[in-house]
Amino acid sequence: MPTPASGYAAPSAAAPLAPFSFERRDPGATDVAIDILYCGVCHSDLHTARGEWEGTLYPCVPGHEIVGRVTAVGSDVTKFTVGDIAGVGCMVGSCGHCPSCDDGEEQYCETTGMVGTYNGPDPVLGGYTFGGYSDHIVVDEGFVLKVTHDEADLAAVAPLLCAGITTYSPLRHWKVGPGQKVGIVGLGGLGHMGVKIAAAMGAEVYVFSTSPNKRDDAKRLGATDLIVSKDADAMAEHANSFDFILNTVAAPHDLDQFLMLLKRDGTMTLVGVPAEPHPSPSVGNLVFRRRHLAGSLIGGIAETQEMLDFCREHGLTADIETIRMDEIETAYERMVKSDVKYRFVIDMATLTAA
Amino acid sequence: MPTPASGYAAPSAAAPLAPFSFERRDPGATDVAIDILYCGVCHSDLHTARGEWEGTLYPCVPGHEIVGRVTAVGSDVTKFTVGDIAGVGCMVGSCGHCPSCDDGEEQYCETTGMVGTYNGPDPVLGGYTFGGYSDHIVVDEGFVLKVTHDEADLAAVAPLLCAGITTYSPLRHWKVGPGQKVGIVGLGGLGHMGVKIAAAMGAEVYVFSTSPNKRDDAKRLGATDLIVSKDADAMAEHANSFDFILNTVAAPHDLDQFLMLLKRDGTMTLVGVPAEPHPSPSVGNLVFRRRHLAGSLIGGIAETQEMLDFCREHGLTADIETIRMDEIETAYERMVKSDVKYRFVIDMATLTAA
Repeated sequence: MPTPASGYAAPSAAAPLAPFSFERRDPGATDVAIDILYCGVCHSDLHTARGEWEGTLYPCVPGHEIVGRVTAVGSDVTKFTVGDIAGVGCMVGSCGHCPSCDDGEEQYCETTGMVGTYNGPDPVLGGYTFGGYSDHIVVDEGFVLKVTHDEADLAAVAPLLCAGITTYSPLRHWKVGPGQKVGIVGLGGLGHMGVKIAAAMGAEVYVFSTSPNKRDDAKRLGATDLIVSKDADAMAEHANSFDFILNTVAAPHDLDQFLMLLKRDGTMTLVGVPAEPHPSPSVGNLVFRRRHLAGSLIGGIAETQEMLDFCREHGLTADIETIRMDEIETAYERMVKSDVKYRFVIDMATLTAA
Repeated sequence: MPTPASGYAAPSAAAPLAPFSFERRDPGATDVAIDILYCGVCHSDLHTARGEWEGTLYPCVPGHEIVGRVTAVGSDVTKFTVGDIAGVGCMVGSCGHCPSCDDGEEQYCETTGMVGTYNGPDPVLGGYTFGGYSDHIVVDEGFVLKVTHDEADLAAVAPLLCAGITTYSPLRHWKVGPGQKVGIVGLGGLGHMGVKIAAAMGAEVYVFSTSPNKRDDAKRLGATDLIVSKDADAMAEHANSFDFILNTVAAPHDLDQFLMLLKRDGTMTLVGVPAEPHPSPSVGNLVFRRRHLAGSLIGGIAETQEMLDFCREHGLTADIETIRMDEIETAYERMVKSDVKYRFVIDMATLTAA
């Protein structure tokens, strides 16, 4: 018996988001029902709502940086009880039996692919999934995270579920730690979390930005310095010196200016997929220092839990601006102009009030 | 007191190679003098002689796949004695004290850069180095390799000094071995050694080629099969299945068709630097399987010795066609047309006879 749910949906690519009523499933044996307290606003929400990527199904309820309170659990649920604070990130399912799922890397699921928290095929009700711009959600406990931050911080925890894990996972996978010099390209929602996490891991962190105005903020977040990527002399000073560079910029740009800064055997990992290709990177820059160019997609569920625990231990949350649900369109407009430090989070109490 | 040497040199980018007299240094305390028996013919020789890369100094004596017999050793030489068979590859020096040199990765020397066997700055006589298309060479023992193959095989050993190490090093660095599925893109001088070495390391090897005609040869060299890279259906059958792909093709081509064949966390390593960029690889192909695109340059001296020993133990040499020194221009013309299986080697006895 599905239960009624309310949220905000994009009715079409061209129309603004508006109140929307739909249904959630009742919790099955392994499900957790969560009243959503906060939902972060990711660039993916905007791209999907506006139909800028292929395949958006309308009406579309975005949102995959979800924190809320457990209101019901299925009979087989062991990890959660009613009243717990829980999180849901970019995925709510996967095949569960392919090599990547077996390895706890469900985001790379090799058979069905991961089930997106929104706009993915709903394996229970049929149709497609609706995201976190809504009053509640029902998710298999295998894709629900335990949140143990102070309750006062929960709004700022929400962005960890996408921006946090998307930066934590590559920093962990490529073994960032003390004694390493690490670069973060771009200081936005992802980048600002990358700086905080890499610094907490013990690395010496530099931010690359086209804007020198962000220097003070970069340092406040934990960076040693900001390097202005348009300043060729400043960049040249750091040639061949970085162990790892996390590149969060999705707009097409010159990758070589950063690859040249890697030491021998260094890696630059891209977490943004540009709509148009980057200029082709120089093969010489790879060959003459045995450098790597790689990509990384969010992170697995176990790693997301590890990230949440790491952030709590290190006192890390996102820098956020809380908005009302009915301010979402203004928030999107400001996001496009990078006018946010550094993540909008919807206070879902404003949904029912709206 | 330098001693006279004779060889073949390109007088200019436009002129054919011709007999050339020059000088080698007398062996210093740590030097080894080698009468050259065989010298392989690498594409780099052709590019440098023809001035197709920047910076060729004329007259230019190419050749960096050198096998010969030791005729004199300096007072401090410990590894070689007169009469030994020795090899010299792509480099004859490096700074000796940077992080890469300390790690035995002299090819990535971070201060002076490695000293090329030809067209590099001569640290002793001044001027620049002359390569292996010549009667003898004098090299610091730190850059001389021990060759222990049967003397009957020495012509076929010569190409190991560049084509062998350029493929062995990445196969070893990325830990190719039993249970792995490995691709080799291109079946030329480098590719044919890549197939032999990867198969000897225990991997299941596939050759990618635009030409189905090379299938029998690929299998003879040790491959399980040849996959015609222009056959989209054949390629699709192997999606997401390769642990490692070694790409030996320097001509600009679509990298995505190969990146798509890598498993999660797989790497494709480029060893050829194209004159014009490859089409820009898809970032999505990297992100959605956490794949790597990397480069690799020849190999260090210790690793070159390891490769020679590995090849001897496994009975590996190059497939060659022996030529006379005065046939070099014809050989270059045929190389450009890929009309060689798989490496030309100059019998240096024909130099003095010429």
